[in-house]
Amino acid sequence: MDLRDLIAGITPADATAMGAAQARQAALTKPPGSLGRLEDLSVRLAGIQSTDRPIIRGKAIIVAAADHGVVDQGVTAYPQEVTAQMVLNFLAGGAAISVLARQAGIDLIIVDAGVATALPAHPDLRVLGIGRGTADITAGPAMSRSQAEACVTAGIELTLEAAERGADAIGTGDMGIGNTTSSSAIVAALTGRPPGETTGRGTGRSDAELADKAAVVERALAVNQPDASDPLDVLAKVGGFEIGVLAGVVLGGACARRAVVIDGFISGTAALIAHHLCPNVRDYLVAGHLSAEAGHRIVLEALGLRPLLELEMRLGEGTGAALAMGLLEAAAATLSDMATFEEAGVSDRPSDEAGGAA
Amino acid sequence: MDLRDLIAGITPADATAMGAAQARQAALTKPPGSLGRLEDLSVRLAGIQSTDRPIIRGKAIIVAAADHGVVDQGVTAYPQEVTAQMVLNFLAGGAAISVLARQAGIDLIIVDAGVATALPAHPDLRVLGIGRGTADITAGPAMSRSQAEACVTAGIELTLEAAERGADAIGTGDMGIGNTTSSSAIVAALTGRPPGETTGRGTGRSDAELADKAAVVERALAVNQPDASDPLDVLAKVGGFEIGVLAGVVLGGACARRAVVIDGFISGTAALIAHHLCPNVRDYLVAGHLSAEAGHRIVLEALGLRPLLELEMRLGEGTGAALAMGLLEAAAATLSDMATFEEAGVSDRPSDEAGGAA
Repeated sequence: MDLRDLIAGITPADATAMGAAQARQAALTKPPGSLGRLEDLSVRLAGIQSTDRPIIRGKAIIVAAADHGVVDQGVTAYPQEVTAQMVLNFLAGGAAISVLARQAGIDLIIVDAGVATALPAHPDLRVLGIGRGTADITAGPAMSRSQAEACVTAGIELTLEAAERGADAIGTGDMGIGNTTSSSAIVAALTGRPPGETTGRGTGRSDAELADKAAVVERALAVNQPDASDPLDVLAKVGGFEIGVLAGVVLGGACARRAVVIDGFISGTAALIAHHLCPNVRDYLVAGHLSAEAGHRIVLEALGLRPLLELEMRLGEGTGAALAMGLLEAAAATLSDMATFEEAGVSDRPSDEAGGAA
Repeated sequence: MDLRDLIAGITPADATAMGAAQARQAALTKPPGSLGRLEDLSVRLAGIQSTDRPIIRGKAIIVAAADHGVVDQGVTAYPQEVTAQMVLNFLAGGAAISVLARQAGIDLIIVDAGVATALPAHPDLRVLGIGRGTADITAGPAMSRSQAEACVTAGIELTLEAAERGADAIGTGDMGIGNTTSSSAIVAALTGRPPGETTGRGTGRSDAELADKAAVVERALAVNQPDASDPLDVLAKVGGFEIGVLAGVVLGGACARRAVVIDGFISGTAALIAHHLCPNVRDYLVAGHLSAEAGHRIVLEALGLRPLLELEMRLGEGTGAALAMGLLEAAAATLSDMATFEEAGVSDRPSDEAGGAA
């Protein structure tokens, strides 16, 4: 697959279908606009699926896991082996995302995008073999440019496959001890915001540790000098394998014309890379939630997205995306399945009052 | 059933179970607190169900419909017959709440609490026969005190029945042309806030119409002089039949120790009445969402509740409650079904770092 060709083929959402969906919303048995953001979301889904009757049946979340050499700088509360242990927990069904996916009927696609510890083979684990953990970004690039391209390409392929198997909505999820540090560096590089603003507490850091972490991000940027106009350079220099895969998920989802539900800070960072590679992906993105991790707000602002949920979560794994999937289903179902005033024999308000709508 | 006895029997949530749930949350495979408000909600559900492993299986929403004589004052955009037409739409499955309930596996209990137009008999329609629309509250009381008590009692009975049939979570929903006007009057009476603050646009009013509506609320309060220390007096003087039923749903849910998911402004107003009758109900209440209707924020503040969703919806019918039900299921499932660090063999962070949590 040629990445440039694929990106060139990603087109905006279908404006005609969105217009038809808006007209249908106005005819449904409810005061105009009274379903609020659910209506906006339904119109977006119409544009993505090119129909005024969108539907969300199959749902999948791609959870990409990888390790980060920058943990040598003491930026994390948990030891590196937790990445591998949590992948096993995903596979065994005991993690938060396992529980939420099971409850909501979401297929989980667990990807070893570059975990440092060798994992035992498992039928439900996709192993990419691109690398085993990034190098320490305070000493040099995280990975080679060809590894960065390989991650993105792998994410695209996994997503096209999931779409082929029937996923109408595809969510992103991450696991990787140290990946908030890498994400903070990427966001600082791509948005120009200082590391002090893009760096948060991750899985739990004190004020002093937070300042140290921002200094690590600062050093990573100074050492690597990533080129903000070249998202793959930023990914290679200060990124992570799972972040590259998730950027590919966004591109693949847009290419397959599927709604892509973005989880928190790491997933948002991946979406930002994809957006820099291809601005048209924005039409396919739904921000599942606002993470409590500080940099996520900056990412959503840069993407121009409003989160659906604000539950002060900061776990990653795709947990915020999983919770938001139900809202996508609700948005599609209300637009597609509600009766119109005419069908239901319900009196619409007199048309001369329509101008008085709130 | 004696209302006073029932109210006296409503006890706070189980503090021991909540403590056990908090301890369990801390042992689950995730950084402490990283599921945010989902964790708080799970602990509340533990307290409601008296177990550290709560579960939400059966779900029901009680949608109460009634008419309001105050529509004679020109406070609404839609004609009164829409209440009856929408009840038929609920029964036919074409309304927003019908679609959302179907999608989320929620039982709908449709109640004619006092619709003005006679409705044809239907196996899924519960008809209370307490009244056929309230009287115009600008000219006198909405209903008699015994009618007010009968509504509340009927709501309690419907809810105990739903709980008996297996509903672990019970939502509230309303339909009634004119019921935002009645709710604004109740909220003004119970909170002491001026009608100008408690009155919103309802299903769509211009600025001038909004001012007229607030004046109607002002007049209803002046004419009736409801006694703020007597919630049943407030309900009888300026309330509505569906609002009384929903106040009963809140009391019945608390009595049966079920989570009660409150929808928007009308439902919140009913919860406020129930809360004034019995402050202990608060432990059982979950605010499903924040409605765009102006007075809802005042209601939630008075109840001390934070809404789970803020999607700018203002439809009623239980639509906000239906969307929030999935979050209750998610909260219960993560607490009950996730693996602990020990079970999953995942390394917890060193205990000396635990103090650094965000």
